[in-house]
Amino acid sequence: MTDLTYVERAARVKLMIFDVDGVLTDGSLHYGAEGEALKTFNVHDGLGIKLLQESGVQTAIISARTSPQVIKRAADLGIVHLHQGGHDKLTPFKALLEKTGLTADQVGFIGDDVVDLPILTRVGFAVAVPNGRAEVLERAHHTTVAAGGRGAVREVCELLLHAQGTYERVMAQFLV
Amino acid sequence: MTDLTYVERAARVKLMIFDVDGVLTDGSLHYGAEGEALKTFNVHDGLGIKLLQESGVQTAIISARTSPQVIKRAADLGIVHLHQGGHDKLTPFKALLEKTGLTADQVGFIGDDVVDLPILTRVGFAVAVPNGRAEVLERAHHTTVAAGGRGAVREVCELLLHAQGTYERVMAQFLV
Amino acid sequence: MTDLTYVERAARVKLMIFDVDGVLTDGSLHYGAEGEALKTFNVHDGLGIKLLQESGVQTAIISARTSPQVIKRAADLGIVHLHQGGHDKLTPFKALLEKTGLTADQVGFIGDDVVDLPILTRVGFAVAVPNGRAEVLERAHHTTVAAGGRGAVREVCELLLHAQGTYERVMAQFLV
Amino acid sequence: MTDLTYVERAARVKLMIFDVDGVLTDGSLHYGAEGEALKTFNVHDGLGIKLLQESGVQTAIISARTSPQVIKRAADLGIVHLHQGGHDKLTPFKALLEKTGLTADQVGFIGDDVVDLPILTRVGFAVAVPNGRAEVLERAHHTTVAAGGRGAVREVCELLLHAQGTYERVMAQFLV
Repeated sequence: MTDLTYVERAARVKLMIFDVDGVLTDGSLHYGAEGEALKTFNVHDGLGIKLLQESGVQTAIISARTSPQVIKRAADLGIVHLHQGGHDKLTPFKALLEKTGLTADQVGFIGDDVVDLPILTRVGFAVAVPNGRAEVLERAHHTTVAAGGRGAVREVCELLLHAQGTYERVMAQFLV
Repeated sequence: MTDLTYVERAARVKLMIFDVDGVLTDGSLHYGAEGEALKTFNVHDGLGIKLLQESGVQTAIISARTSPQVIKRAADLGIVHLHQGGHDKLTPFKALLEKTGLTADQVGFIGDDVVDLPILTRVGFAVAVPNGRAEVLERAHHTTVAAGGRGAVREVCELLLHAQGTYERVMAQFLV
Repeated sequence: MTDLTYVERAARVKLMIFDVDGVLTDGSLHYGAEGEALKTFNVHDGLGIKLLQESGVQTAIISARTSPQVIKRAADLGIVHLHQGGHDKLTPFKALLEKTGLTADQVGFIGDDVVDLPILTRVGFAVAVPNGRAEVLERAHHTTVAAGGRGAVREVCELLLHAQGTYERVMAQFLV
Repeated sequence: MTDLTYVERAARVKLMIFDVDGVLTDGSLHYGAEGEALKTFNVHDGLGIKLLQESGVQTAIISARTSPQVIKRAADLGIVHLHQGGHDKLTPFKALLEKTGLTADQVGFIGDDVVDLPILTRVGFAVAVPNGRAEVLERAHHTTVAAGGRGAVREVCELLLHAQGTYERVMAQFLV
């Protein structure tokens, strides 16, 4: 796999895994007295995830933090594979491979911090956000132009659609 | 219509339709455990919409997402034409033409994402925000300088006032 | 008064009036289902207002919007002159002059939008924020470097302290 | 101590004290009708503080404002030394030295405003954020690249880890 371009890697992805804080958000944690009260997502990312699902790619979330806001957002977007909680991301990653019957080469991941490295160094298509830590950017196959919470996820979804030749098909519904 | 400048197009607008997420907001979705808990609008946009109404132009909102925050904001701004819900924006657009008795040439629209294309490609004056998707910017007659949620709507309202020669009249109240 | 520099104008100020949206905030309106649920102020601005008060300058807020968040913020900062509600800002401005026994020359004001012009064009020291509308910046004696909600108010408070020669005195408490 | 580089100063730190507003946040104060309803922290900062603790450095918060959100955030991050309330930061600082049995030379502090100067001018390693006031930046031994609420605290935590030679050890857990 080491000689593949990132577009060739994107073309093989059957399951895309998203980190939450710093990727689906800009890393802000809005605390009330009881802990996180709000989480700020991005509307463009949401449509990107839906279009990616329509193209036939599965979607998942693996996050180190646990929050009810993520459960609701995942439900709104039809993301069925959701794992929250714990700095050990490797165990849920392996469980997800087993559940879906996919190999790591068929999986994409987008993350931003060092807790993401155990997944990021194993998947076929590893993506970082520009607001990610240096240790992550150095090890990713690709870094998005848009920052987390500012369209990074939409960008990677469109990249997958283009790489897999499904972009025109899912866009057709809007060109009526 | 194809040879008109965007200012000539703006001069004909009798009804201006605003998209919400990414246009009246910066695209952030603030989730609580039950879904969207807050929506962040812009104070300058609000005054722009009021001034546009004072000049005689009708205003409307068509949004793919449903949120009680938009209902309240529309009420505060006196926007009577409000349609929320569903990625099909063409049906409410056609219903709005029928309700107002206007032709598409007399309608302006400002949007940011591909779900907006069915309206954007039909109206007489199609505006994009700079934070919009490339597919939208390519098809708009004009793109604002200010981003969504950061004054894009105020800018388009003032553009309409200038194009229609009503700017001086509505501003006079503040030059006392 | 027309030949005075803005520093000379600042030196005469006995009462400083702050606009809220776009000045004490960045212009964001965070709506819940019942209207504005939150207002985002800036911690540096708060300390600036307190230091200005310690120097002997009176402080006031005149805002076109009504919100309980502003009442609470004004109370926390010890701002006793608070007027909220209505696009007519001239009436509360005149009432404030009468209440304090000051002339307009002894008053400073910082604003951002056209509803502020009736006050801005009357005071001895008129300040705009860089995120303000062009009509406001053109008529102000001075424009801050920092934007509204990002330290503009702290900047104008320190400008007054320097112009009035009270900066060293109020800062002394922190140089222990 | 006056000839030490900031890295040599960082190497001696046994206790790191964090200011809250403008350092662990970007200085925004989100007010509801009852006062601060939310405080916005940063996910990268949180992991930085945890890694610093794992390396053996103690952590503390001293803040001029009192908020339940900070109590919750400190609890989530395992910060046991927490003092909130009052512009006098010198008294809790001295109490903290007594409680921990450390000298000021063994303490680091990161702050942003003039109320922080009494601590900042006494500690062995004084850090400012770039969004801090000029009076603070002038007196600090070091200023972070990242702004408050945008990774300044993560940056200073990693600086301490590198200066103390513990970075590789705490990072090893993620390179599995």
